[in-house]
Amino acid sequence: MFSLSERKSAAVVLLSGGMDSTVLLHHVARTLSPSPLISLSYSYGQRHSKELGKAEWQAGRVGVDEHRVIPIEFVADLVSAGTSLVFGGGAVPDLNDLPKDALAQPPTYVPNRNMMLLSIAAAFAEAQGIHDVYYGAQAHDEYGYWDCTADFIERINSVLSLNRRDAVTIHAPFVSERKSAIVRMGMELGVDFGRTWSCYRGGARPCGDCPTCVERRNAFGEAGFDDPLEGGEA
Amino acid sequence: MFSLSERKSAAVVLLSGGMDSTVLLHHVARTLSPSPLISLSYSYGQRHSKELGKAEWQAGRVGVDEHRVIPIEFVADLVSAGTSLVFGGGAVPDLNDLPKDALAQPPTYVPNRNMMLLSIAAAFAEAQGIHDVYYGAQAHDEYGYWDCTADFIERINSVLSLNRRDAVTIHAPFVSERKSAIVRMGMELGVDFGRTWSCYRGGARPCGDCPTCVERRNAFGEAGFDDPLEGGEA
Repeated sequence: MFSLSERKSAAVVLLSGGMDSTVLLHHVARTLSPSPLISLSYSYGQRHSKELGKAEWQAGRVGVDEHRVIPIEFVADLVSAGTSLVFGGGAVPDLNDLPKDALAQPPTYVPNRNMMLLSIAAAFAEAQGIHDVYYGAQAHDEYGYWDCTADFIERINSVLSLNRRDAVTIHAPFVSERKSAIVRMGMELGVDFGRTWSCYRGGARPCGDCPTCVERRNAFGEAGFDDPLEGGEA
Repeated sequence: MFSLSERKSAAVVLLSGGMDSTVLLHHVARTLSPSPLISLSYSYGQRHSKELGKAEWQAGRVGVDEHRVIPIEFVADLVSAGTSLVFGGGAVPDLNDLPKDALAQPPTYVPNRNMMLLSIAAAFAEAQGIHDVYYGAQAHDEYGYWDCTADFIERINSVLSLNRRDAVTIHAPFVSERKSAIVRMGMELGVDFGRTWSCYRGGARPCGDCPTCVERRNAFGEAGFDDPLEGGEA
């Protein structure tokens, strides 16, 4: 716990190790200089470990006061009937195999994932006496998740606002941005995108064909930058 | 996973092993005869294990199709700065030591607990293709938790309703009832209250002085019944 005066400008940033949350961490550190600044990651299985390493590196780079990893391995078992991907086994589809309807829930969707992650983050922040949680959700360019929208964030905050003593607010400043805008902001902030990870397939190098790989490539292209991950870093 | 036709009348019931959720489980089984009927408990530490045993017994008594225990031990560590009780160590206060202001959050409050529990339950239900989750929350007679109110449930459902394919609804039929009404309903349903557990202190027998013990005693008194736990069962 931190003293009350410190806590007033404190922040928790959700950090997956992907590019959106990494840019957000640098952005929050630079523009708000919160004290303390705590980055929060979740561990939920093997496939995910590469991303976690990137998160840890970025937390160190930014110089957070604490980098916390919350073990939520139970989620894989919990949702195993409902998702073939991310947490469990199953093949990851190419983007071209995904439903074209932007409203559909792609097979990479994990049931109610973001509500779980945010409610855990809010519990952690509240217990620390911290009121502000930053979350890099972005209402994807190419396909749709209901739990990555501005509406979703607003309603989560509506729940949290009922707290009678220490209401936590989720801030999701990227939610209505295009991914290319996040790339541009990261470049301005000097973010090392070679130390982020997006690929769902978790190989030694990004596969280039899974939904996030395609989305990431499009974002860098639209922003007019090269992705250092496409070059050599593995 | 259950076949689609079966799933239409399926239900998940959150079952803590306390009296409210136990009565709810019997009530849902009797009035709705859901198929499948799944009871869901959470394990989060030693002090809690007594309640879990009662939950398992009651699930067997009702004849649920599946009794599932989700391990969320990470929560104790997560909120250790913010709560002295329930999950962690610390002394449990007598009810008389609690703040009199009904709006205050008593020391037995666990930061954002119910939002975590409900979002995990909703994820489980959605993954199973089940749309209805039953939750025995009751806006306590003696003291207040912001996350046990009708408003809270309504706003949680407002979040979940954004789901574009399989929206889950949380039903909390007891939320505006007095605890004595729950005792009466349980008696009508033939619930064995000797096989439920409420005491926060988790000793061999209920302590009689902690907040839930006092509340439970008042509820039985108001309903005009003896609590079998007060007699001999331990």
